[in-house]
Amino acid sequence: MASEKGVMLLDFWVSPFSQRARIALAEKGVEYENKEQSLLDKSELLLKSNPVHKKIPVLIHDGKPVCESLIIVQYIDEVWSDKAPLLPSDPYQRAQARFWADFVDKKVFECGGRLWKQKGEEQEVAKREMTENLEILEAQLGDNMYFGGGFVDVAFVPLTSWFYSYKTCANFSVEAVAPKIVQWAQRCMERESVAKTLSDPKKVYDFVCNLKKILGIE
Amino acid sequence: MASEKGVMLLDFWVSPFSQRARIALAEKGVEYENKEQSLLDKSELLLKSNPVHKKIPVLIHDGKPVCESLIIVQYIDEVWSDKAPLLPSDPYQRAQARFWADFVDKKVFECGGRLWKQKGEEQEVAKREMTENLEILEAQLGDNMYFGGGFVDVAFVPLTSWFYSYKTCANFSVEAVAPKIVQWAQRCMERESVAKTLSDPKKVYDFVCNLKKILGIE
Repeated sequence: MASEKGVMLLDFWVSPFSQRARIALAEKGVEYENKEQSLLDKSELLLKSNPVHKKIPVLIHDGKPVCESLIIVQYIDEVWSDKAPLLPSDPYQRAQARFWADFVDKKVFECGGRLWKQKGEEQEVAKREMTENLEILEAQLGDNMYFGGGFVDVAFVPLTSWFYSYKTCANFSVEAVAPKIVQWAQRCMERESVAKTLSDPKKVYDFVCNLKKILGIE
Repeated sequence: MASEKGVMLLDFWVSPFSQRARIALAEKGVEYENKEQSLLDKSELLLKSNPVHKKIPVLIHDGKPVCESLIIVQYIDEVWSDKAPLLPSDPYQRAQARFWADFVDKKVFECGGRLWKQKGEEQEVAKREMTENLEILEAQLGDNMYFGGGFVDVAFVPLTSWFYSYKTCANFSVEAVAPKIVQWAQRCMERESVAKTLSDPKKVYDFVCNLKKILGIE
């Protein structure tokens, strides 16, 4: 097991990407220093640690930065490999886990943004796409308690604290289109690593409302 | 070493994503059946193997499909692990390799598309962004022969056969802004796995011209 000395997370409380890193660290029982960042006035440390994308989260381990949330989660899984494996050991199952985590990034996150940002017909398009995305994920989950291996759960579960904003901003009910996803999210919340990490959905909604004001899309 | 029996690639000759899979298979010395696909009339096999994205490449190994090119390359590296490792063994170096491969996807490929699709000011924006992207990659390469570990080389080198199209469609010279990247591409071409895989840049350009006609953006 690698030294835990000098583990720091450049974080932002509401970011689903940061929350992935926090859940993975909690699953592994890694102690770390959490450095909350301002996204409007980025710190020297953030700009130095992620000069390419200038985004949180960044995991700094023994002075070396790791960027991009799914890469961070894989790094955490590989360094603290003695506890709570997140990726399965079988190469095919690993590829499947990577595929579904990537699906969450490319399809669910992006579509979720359009749900609360857009109006009228564009919002209706986003609702139809989100319905399709969630039905695909529900079919993938099947009757399993969790998605395979933990990696997909860690990738997806932070987005569930945005479901309330989907409902309130876009009248989109995840419960109505994918009830098994809501049940899965409730099961995930029974894990301390998730319960202690996920943002309160009403605080997420307040954040969304403020962001809409800043973006001029009230 | 896993059985090589039943390795098939659903392929499309000019796709940089397919070429990644082909290079990785060649580096590992894996024999496989190549099934060229039509993108205008997608086969039942493609639709069944990648029902979510309906895109090539798909690697089918012992009947099981693996989708998304970087996930395919990692799968190949994990299954045929006895030869030509593509990802480094050190977790930090692996994270770095994944980061730069992801950078190629998110920044270089996307920007390259805009170089040949767009005109006027939008094309100028793409040229400035591509200059910045290539300068970042050149700095990352430094004085090394290759990017770390092989994974980034495999991810990036298929795009080099599009450089001629960048020049011809957008008067964008990679040589002028990032000469070390051109030298690196030449070194990669000395490898049989790359030389036998990469598309002829002039054929890529013919393909781009045809695609522009189909898209109505001549």
